Formats: sequence, C-alpha cells, structure tokens
Amino acid sequence: MNVLVTGAAGFLGTRVIEALLDGGASATPVTRIVAADISACPIADPRVDARVGTVADASFARTIVEPDVDVIFHLAAVLSGQSEAEFDLGLQVNVDGTRNLLEASRARNTRPRFVFSSTVAVFGGDLPDEVPEEQVLRPQTSYGTAKAIAELLVSEYSRRRFIDGIACRLATVAVRPGAPNSALSSFVSGIIREPLAGLDTVCPVPLDTPLWISSPDVVTGNLIHAARVPASALEGRLAINLPGITVTPDLMLASLERAAGAAARARVRCEIDPHVARVVSTWPGALDDRRARRLGFSADRSVDDVVAQYAAGRRTR
Amino acid sequence: MNVLVTGAAGFLGTRVIEALLDGGASATPVTRIVAADISACPIADPRVDARVGTVADASFARTIVEPDVDVIFHLAAVLSGQSEAEFDLGLQVNVDGTRNLLEASRARNTRPRFVFSSTVAVFGGDLPDEVPEEQVLRPQTSYGTAKAIAELLVSEYSRRRFIDGIACRLATVAVRPGAPNSALSSFVSGIIREPLAGLDTVCPVPLDTPLWISSPDVVTGNLIHAARVPASALEGRLAINLPGITVTPDLMLASLERAAGAAARARVRCEIDPHVARVVSTWPGALDDRRARRLGFSADRSVDDVVAQYAAGRRTR
Repeated sequence: MNVLVTGAAGFLGTRVIEALLDGGASATPVTRIVAADISACPIADPRVDARVGTVADASFARTIVEPDVDVIFHLAAVLSGQSEAEFDLGLQVNVDGTRNLLEASRARNTRPRFVFSSTVAVFGGDLPDEVPEEQVLRPQTSYGTAKAIAELLVSEYSRRRFIDGIACRLATVAVRPGAPNSALSSFVSGIIREPLAGLDTVCPVPLDTPLWISSPDVVTGNLIHAARVPASALEGRLAINLPGITVTPDLMLASLERAAGAAARARVRCEIDPHVARVVSTWPGALDDRRARRLGFSADRSVDDVVAQYAAGRRTR
Repeated sequence: MNVLVTGAAGFLGTRVIEALLDGGASATPVTRIVAADISACPIADPRVDARVGTVADASFARTIVEPDVDVIFHLAAVLSGQSEAEFDLGLQVNVDGTRNLLEASRARNTRPRFVFSSTVAVFGGDLPDEVPEEQVLRPQTSYGTAKAIAELLVSEYSRRRFIDGIACRLATVAVRPGAPNSALSSFVSGIIREPLAGLDTVCPVPLDTPLWISSPDVVTGNLIHAARVPASALEGRLAINLPGITVTPDLMLASLERAAGAAARARVRCEIDPHVARVVSTWPGALDDRRARRLGFSADRSVDDVVAQYAAGRRTR
C-alpha cells in the first residue's frame, strides 16, 4: 500500500505514520509513505519519503500525489487560533490546499481513498446538547468554515468518483505532548500536561465548559480505521462524527488530582480569556457518534484513561 | 444608492434591475447600477452601466465592485445542468467567482450589503417533507455543492465584517419566459410556457414529483427585500429558506387546463429522463419558510396565480 500523509511532521501525522509503519493496525502492509509537511517529517525509515512544501502550492500538491497512491491522509491544516489571526493563510491552506490535493488526486484517475481530518468546529450557533450528523453546519470560526467547505469538496469529488473520500470530524485531541499549539483548544491538553511537568498553567474557559475530546491513541487508530471503512458502508454520507467523550475542565482536573495529587491540581488556575472562551463556547460539547461506533470507530472509556495514557507516555520517553 | 448586479443580462438580473429603476419597491432611490454579465445587459437607462466579463476573473470582479457600492446582488451562476456537464466551469464561476466578489468587497472596506442567490439544491439526501434551516446541507449536484460552499463564504465574510451578507435560497422560478435554460429544472417552466405558445413539450419527471416554486414577480420582490432586511434581524443565520409553494407537475398541468383548456394540457406528455428525474428527486419539495415570512419575504398564493402571472405577461408583451 502506498500512502500520502500531509501534515506529516505534525503531532497526528507522525503518529499515523508510526502506526502505519508498525503495521499492527493495518491488514495491508505499507510499502511507501510520502510524508509531506512545511517542515521535514523526522521519522527515519526507508519507506518514508519526506517532502517539504505547502499544499497551498498547487504544483507541490501535484508532486506529492504520486501515480500509485492508494490512501491519502490529509491532516495538514492551519489550526483554529492561527486561522482567526491570519484569515488569508487559513483559507489558502485549509480550503485551497484541500482543493489542490483533490485536483491532484482527480488527475491520477485512480480514485484513492482520501481520509480528511475535519473537526467539531464545523458546528456552531444554537446546538442541541448532542449534535447529530443531520445538524446544519454553522461554523463560528474561520477554521470551522474552511473545514466545512473542505467537507463539501470531499463529498462532491467523491460523488464525481474522482476520489473515494471520508471526512472524519475529530474531537479535540487531548492530551497532546510538547509545546502549546496554535489551536484555541490548546489549553485542553495544557491543563493536564503542564502540571504533570511541574509547571503552573491557566484554564482560559469556565471550568464547567463542556468539551468533546479523544486521546491521541484513539484518534490515531480511528484515522487508520477510516482508510479501511468500505465506501458502501458510508451510504453517501461521508462526513462522520467520530467518537469522543464529554468532559469539562473541572472533570479533567479532578482526574489529574486522582492521578497526580492535589499539588498538581493546584498548578491550574482559571483565568477567563474572553476570545478563547467565546470561540470554545460555540463548539459542541457532545456529538451523536452512534454511526461512527457502528462503523467500527472507537472511543476512550473515561477521562481517567485519557490522563493515564498521557502519564504512561511520559514515563516511557 | 449605488448597486452592483451580477448576472445582469439574465432573467432574474434584468428583472431586479428593472424593479430597482422603477423604484416602487425601494425606499432609497437608485443613482447608479453596475450591470455585469458575460453578455451585455440590454437595459437602456442612463443609470445603468453595463460591463461584460466573468466574475471568475478576479480582476474583472475588482473592477465591478466600485468604491461607493452600497448593495451587491450576486446572481451570476452556472446553472445546475451546465454545472453537472462542466465541473470545472461550475466551480470557477459559482465558487471562485463568489469568492472573487467577496474579496473585492472586502478590499473596499465599506461592508456593502451582499445579497447572494442560493438555491434549494443546497439540500439533498434523506430529507424531511418540509426542510428546516437547521437541516445539514448534503447537496447531490455540483451546482448545489458550489452554492453551499458560497453560503459558507458569505457567512464567514460577514462574521469577519468584510461584508453585510444574506443568502437567499430561491425556489425554482416558474414560469420563466423565453427559451429553456441550462437548469435541470427548466422543464418546470416549460410545461406551462410551451403549451401556451402552442408547442408540444415533455415533462421529464414523474407527474407526482413535489416541486418548490416561486413566480418571477415574487422572487424579484424578495431579492429586492433582501437588500433591506436589517442584519440584526438575521441573528447570525444568514442563509434563509425563501418562501415558495409546493406543486407537482400534475397540479401545474391541472392549473394550465383551467387557464387554457384541455388542448393546452394535451400538449404535455410525460417521458422520464432518468438523469433529470434522479437529480430533481434529490431536491426538497418544501422548505420551512416561516422565518422568511416573519422577515417580510412574500410567497405566491396558489399555482393558479403563478400560471396567471405568466399568462398576463404574455398578453402585455
């Protein structure tokens, strides 16, 4: 199987590539991975061919979609915070970049499986407590708007049989290791990660804000699974609410305290950032993910599992 | 008031311009109308400045959005039949053309009212009998996809305060005079227009197919009204299901017979075109238009009124 991963140097990209190389999750062995990103994918493996460039450049997009590609994981994106700050860049990468890849795929004439990473941020406005897939997309951010447009393009290019697409609406991924990123949801990882590293940090939203999250292991496994779901099982509805669990900062911090004690919990103070709090409040706190579960996508069992997964990862590094 | 109309040589464009010049429907007199289309707008009036070009050309889009424009009626589009046949052209005009106009408007820094003509074809897939505005957009045509994307762009550019947008989901306009056009719904007018002209014609869909229609007078009045609805009344939901009435070809033909006799009715035979029938069956037969009615948009009273409006127009020409 020949694979293209965009956003290959990013957090999810590197994990997806490692899982593909490991092969445990995939029935079809990977022979080659084109790993594209704006910085070089650091994975050293003879099967990985790192390419540096932006999908916003149509000619770069054409070079990375090779004639024999079977599966494309399109994970590259300008995240929510940066998309709000840099409107044009957000559209160029998140909309035009996706269209460039779709056009490059169409030109290959081989209908590759195209796994697109979408987001809960496609939803917004007045929402029911649990958002169904039949809910209109009324995004309240540039990021969510661009992802909603890209979902429509993925569906249309699939209907035209240019690609074999699937759009996975990912929950907020927590706990991400490393430094804060440019997502407005970055704090969701930060309020666990920083205290465990002995650092003080801030929760910028009210502690009872509902958040829809998934752990890195679950999201990675679900993206790999998305490459294998048969198109016929999707019944023409290519955008899927991936599973998640509903938490609040309060529930996350209670879990942190159970795992690491009151001193860790005490390192997080709540200090509302009106911009972040406003945007995060437009995102759904829960999706109806029953279809995804029927299609074999998985979910975390509890917030304690999510925290434990991160703590275990720290110990093995 | 300075106005730009795109699609100005088209059926709706010329009617909107005539209504604006007439002034009866508008409290604010029109001082100037830039009338842009791929062929010259034929209206001879010193206030009308006809421009020939395509909105798909970004530099043309910049020249027609003048610094002092107050209202933009963006009606130019590649219609449903042609968008299915010419995929690239459809995206270039319906998506890129809209974005070009939005960018040109943004550059003016004056937040013009931007009236965008959308369509029932943004909906598709499994639909309730009466489609609410909360329904997910799952278009089953290239035309519907492009219009759904354009709706998202209009909402986002408005949220960013680059424009003051409103997206009007028009019903199928019937009865259109003149020749058949490249819309797959063209027959909806044809089954009334051709018999009244003494011509035989074909209905390509089952006679009990639900159709959501509005007369030209109602649609024209509603587009003019859309320029005046205060943004605050939209409450951030800029895409509106405009009013219509539900008919079927059978009901339309019964009305034709009442207006013009059994001989006129007998000129229409049903001969299913699988492509047209399939696409038309994906469109909703009724929209929940209660919000539009509350906002002051109007609807036809009956199919007989729709037929009578067309018959009266024929007599005065």
